[in-house]
Parts: sequence; C-alpha cells; structure tokens
Amino acid sequence: MMMKALTYAVVGTGAIGGYYGAKLAHAGHEVHFLLHSDYEYVCAHGLRVSSCDGDFALPQVHAYADTRLMPQVDVVLVGLKSTNEHLLRTLLPPLLHRDTLVVLIQNGIGLEADVQTWFPDLALAAGLAFICSAKTEPGHINHQYYGSINLGNYSCKNPELMAAVTADFCAAGIDAHEVEYMEARWRKAVWNMPFNGMTVALQTQTDQLLSHPATRQLIFEQMMEVIGAANALGISALNETFAQKMMQMTDDMVPYSPSMRLDFDFHRPMEIHYLYTRPIAEARAIGFAMPRLEMLEQELLFIDARNKRDRS
Amino acid sequence: MMMKALTYAVVGTGAIGGYYGAKLAHAGHEVHFLLHSDYEYVCAHGLRVSSCDGDFALPQVHAYADTRLMPQVDVVLVGLKSTNEHLLRTLLPPLLHRDTLVVLIQNGIGLEADVQTWFPDLALAAGLAFICSAKTEPGHINHQYYGSINLGNYSCKNPELMAAVTADFCAAGIDAHEVEYMEARWRKAVWNMPFNGMTVALQTQTDQLLSHPATRQLIFEQMMEVIGAANALGISALNETFAQKMMQMTDDMVPYSPSMRLDFDFHRPMEIHYLYTRPIAEARAIGFAMPRLEMLEQELLFIDARNKRDRS
Repeated sequence: MMMKALTYAVVGTGAIGGYYGAKLAHAGHEVHFLLHSDYEYVCAHGLRVSSCDGDFALPQVHAYADTRLMPQVDVVLVGLKSTNEHLLRTLLPPLLHRDTLVVLIQNGIGLEADVQTWFPDLALAAGLAFICSAKTEPGHINHQYYGSINLGNYSCKNPELMAAVTADFCAAGIDAHEVEYMEARWRKAVWNMPFNGMTVALQTQTDQLLSHPATRQLIFEQMMEVIGAANALGISALNETFAQKMMQMTDDMVPYSPSMRLDFDFHRPMEIHYLYTRPIAEARAIGFAMPRLEMLEQELLFIDARNKRDRS
Repeated sequence: MMMKALTYAVVGTGAIGGYYGAKLAHAGHEVHFLLHSDYEYVCAHGLRVSSCDGDFALPQVHAYADTRLMPQVDVVLVGLKSTNEHLLRTLLPPLLHRDTLVVLIQNGIGLEADVQTWFPDLALAAGLAFICSAKTEPGHINHQYYGSINLGNYSCKNPELMAAVTADFCAAGIDAHEVEYMEARWRKAVWNMPFNGMTVALQTQTDQLLSHPATRQLIFEQMMEVIGAANALGISALNETFAQKMMQMTDDMVPYSPSMRLDFDFHRPMEIHYLYTRPIAEARAIGFAMPRLEMLEQELLFIDARNKRDRS
C-alpha cells in the first residue's frame, strides 16, 4: 500500500527535536516547528545544522510560537524537556487529527503512561535517541556524534504508520529501527540513570567517574540495579554483559556531560521525575529495590532544590 | 584499694585530645602533651580553653614535639586523626610501661583491632567523645557544647584501671561513663556514618540535610543500615527508636559541620577508612550489606582523590 507523504510537527525544537525535524525537512518532508526562545530568529534565518554527518541549512522553515496556529499533522515529535511534560496537555490538541502518532523523544520511564492518561485514545510511541547534540545558539544545532533513533510502539494500533515513520527517518539519513517499547525504555535507562545523576552529584564527567575505581564500581552497581529492575519487570534481554558493554562504550567516548549535568550547569530544572522517581516507583511496585539509585534520587532532589533557590 | 595518681599523655593535642588533656591537667593531673604545628607556641604560652562550661588557661604545660622525649605514663589519650593511625607504631612505644592503658578517642570502627595488631599485649580502650570543640588558633581550644566521654574496654585486663581513669575524668568535671565497647563504637557510628559523609557529598550542614524531606529520609535509611549491621553483629540494644532519637537530637542542634566536612574544607585527608571502609567490611564479612553507605563511601573516595589533586 502506498501512503500519502506524512506531515510532521516538532514540539520542542531543541538539540534533539530540532535535529530530527531538520533532517526530515531537509529530506523534503513538510515539518512544522514549535519554537520558544529563538522563534523570531528562526522565522528570519531558518535552522542550521552543523553535523558530523555533514552540515546543512534550512533557510526557511515553518516556524510557530503557538501550537494553536499550527496545522494538524500525521506525526508529532516531542522534544520537550520532561520537566515540562504537563504542557503537552495544552500544546498537543491543536496538532492532532484522529490518526496522529505522537513520538516522545525524551528520556525516562513513565512518559507515555502519563500522556496516555491525558489523551486516552492517542497513538503513542517512544523515541529513543542515541545522539550527542546541542543547541549552541539560536537556530543552530550542533550534532557532534552518533544520531540513531529507536522507535518503540506504546499504543499505536496502526503498524503501517509506525513502519512508515521509521522508513521516513531512514530515508532522511537517520539510522532508525523499530524496537520493543518496554525493553527499549529500560535499556536506555541502564546508561541514563547512573551517568546523568552521578555527573551532577559529583560535579564531574563520564570519563572521571570511570577512571576512579570506587565510582567505576558504583556506576556498574547502579547499572545492575536498573537491569535487576528490568528483569523483575519481565525484560529478560538485559543482563550483566550489557552493563559491561555500556561501561566499555562509555570508556570509548570523549569525556561527556549528560543532559542532566548541562541542565544543572545552566540552572535549569533537572529531569528527576521521569529519570529516577518513576522507574524507582515502577520497580518498587513489584517489590524490587534500587537502593543506590534511590539514594542518588534523594541527593538530586536536594541539589535541585538548592539550585532552584539559587535561580530565584 | 588506693591507687597512686595516674599520669597521662596526650598524643594529638587537637580539639578533642587537647580538651580532655587540659581538663585533667587543670584538675591537677600530670599530663604530657605531644604537639605538632603549635609546639613552640604552647611551650611559650601554654594552653587556653574557651569553654561553655567555663574558660580556663594552663600557662605552663609539659609540651613535646617528639614522644621519644616524653616519659612513660599510665594512660595515653590518643586524639590523632585516624588518617595518621599508622604513626602510632612509632609514636606509642616511648610512652608505654608494662601496664599502660591507651585510650583511642577517635571516630570509627576497627581502630583498636589495628593498634592491637601492632602491639599485641597493649591494654586498649575506646574513648567515645560527645563534644563540639575546635582548635581555632595555636594553643587555643574552643569548646562549644556537650563534652561527655564514654570509655569502652577493648583489651584492658585491669578493670580497676578502667574505673580509675573514668573517675579521673569525672573528678576533672567531665561527664564520663564506662560502656560496653562494641555497642559504644557502633552506637556512635549511627550518627557519624550518615552525617559526616553526607555533609561532604552535598556540601552542606546537618540542618539542611534534615530540612529537605528526601535527604531527611536518606539520613534515616543510612542510620537504619548501621543499626541493621550492628544487630547482625549481635548488638541488640540499637533499634529504630534510637535512630529517631538521633534525628531528634540533630534537629535540636545548631547547624553543624561534622569533622569530615571540616577536614574536606581545609583540604585535609578524610577519615574514610575507619568511618566507612572498615564498618562496611565488618558487616559484609557476616553477610550484611549497607548499599547506601557503600555508595557514600564510593562518592567520598572520589571526592577525596579530587581534593588530594587540588592539595598538591
């Protein structure tokens, strides 16, 4: 079956949403971008992507400051910080027709469940981005390395739509795959939960954490807590070998500040709820404790409260 | 039986050793003080104690820079930082006669066991000080509040000597009691292990840790890990009620920086080994895990290594 070309919207045109949206637009797709701080700049100058896979510019894009002015689309890519997840209750409705698929390209556990509560009939998928990217100035996305995305179907009853979105990503030069939703979310948490929080708690970067034997051991133990929780939830594919692979992969990376460390440094709220509170609660609900990650969450809540006082 | 007046030496004339030694000297006891950085100042001006229980000065004290010049004494009070524990191998011998009692007024678990390894026949006791005190300038000890000391017999075969030392402390105006060694060491660890490390890890003070619900909960959970370990080691007197009492006591204190926080702030090595590594190892040896305190130890080892690089 030949489908009509899908139309896209990007809600949260930052380092991640902006990158994937720009790639799709560059490949010829109709993409509508919701912007915030750099709306006026992008209206005037478009988007520019400096990328390890080749630079490109979009001198003119469909830019908006308000979703109420945007058209209904077939696919919404959500790149919001999950600290703003509640905004989706008002941001999404203008973009949705009966069959719209919303892809949450965000970190954490429990995001789809919450959005589904607000929109019971909405088709939802997870987008797991493996990318180092940053918005370094207005309208300018700096893509440093990696770039693949895994799509996990949460509540989309139309498998052809999932496949078509994946195909669109691939045709736009993005390494994209369909994966099993639960496993994909928890697989990513194995890296995210230790490194995001620990680089904040100890004010450091990935390489330093791995170079001291005590914190190297701690990171591994925290990974094994995530894997233990995933196993308890019935995800059998994750095991100690995967943790070792994640350690090795991080050893091979350049010294890296995960997104939570950047949020902290720029005095933005940290994504503690979906990165820690929710997965910890999901594991606890089935009787599995993650004491080291619970402690990390507690430290982060303290640090975030102090950071908030400094902000105000 | 009437005993001859006991003679004393203080090894490590700091905030703690200096305070108790000065109180004994002020009460008329012969006390010999080993000094380090302020040896010359104390030779010239003696010791001064500013105390919530009343100020006093000792214009002339027996001051030394080297234990080889000190006489043998009946009782040695050790107030060294436990990061210098190895120095006792050379510092102690000149002070010891056949019946000398060495009282380790230090924080942590495993101190007496190590010193006993070096001096198999030595009579050892633990001194558990409950005191807020600081050496604020050369020869000047600032005693802010509390001040009691509990003495726990580790390997002294002469109960009369233990009783006589306790009586000397009491006669010098110090609230002193003989207590059961193992219980006393672990009882103190219930407060020390959470607060010393957490004030360093989060760069804060006791009151702030207790004012945020997340860290308040974490401190309580860490206390319960210490109590669980103590219970597993056969110390049945410690329980949840005691943890609640320690929380309440700390709520009632002024905002406080424990000694490890001060060590960190002044770029001194931290007492991680006896405060964390050893109790964790003792509990682990009997199959009891303390995951939150293990994580805190790992964080502290990382922080100490960074602090050491900053020192050098």
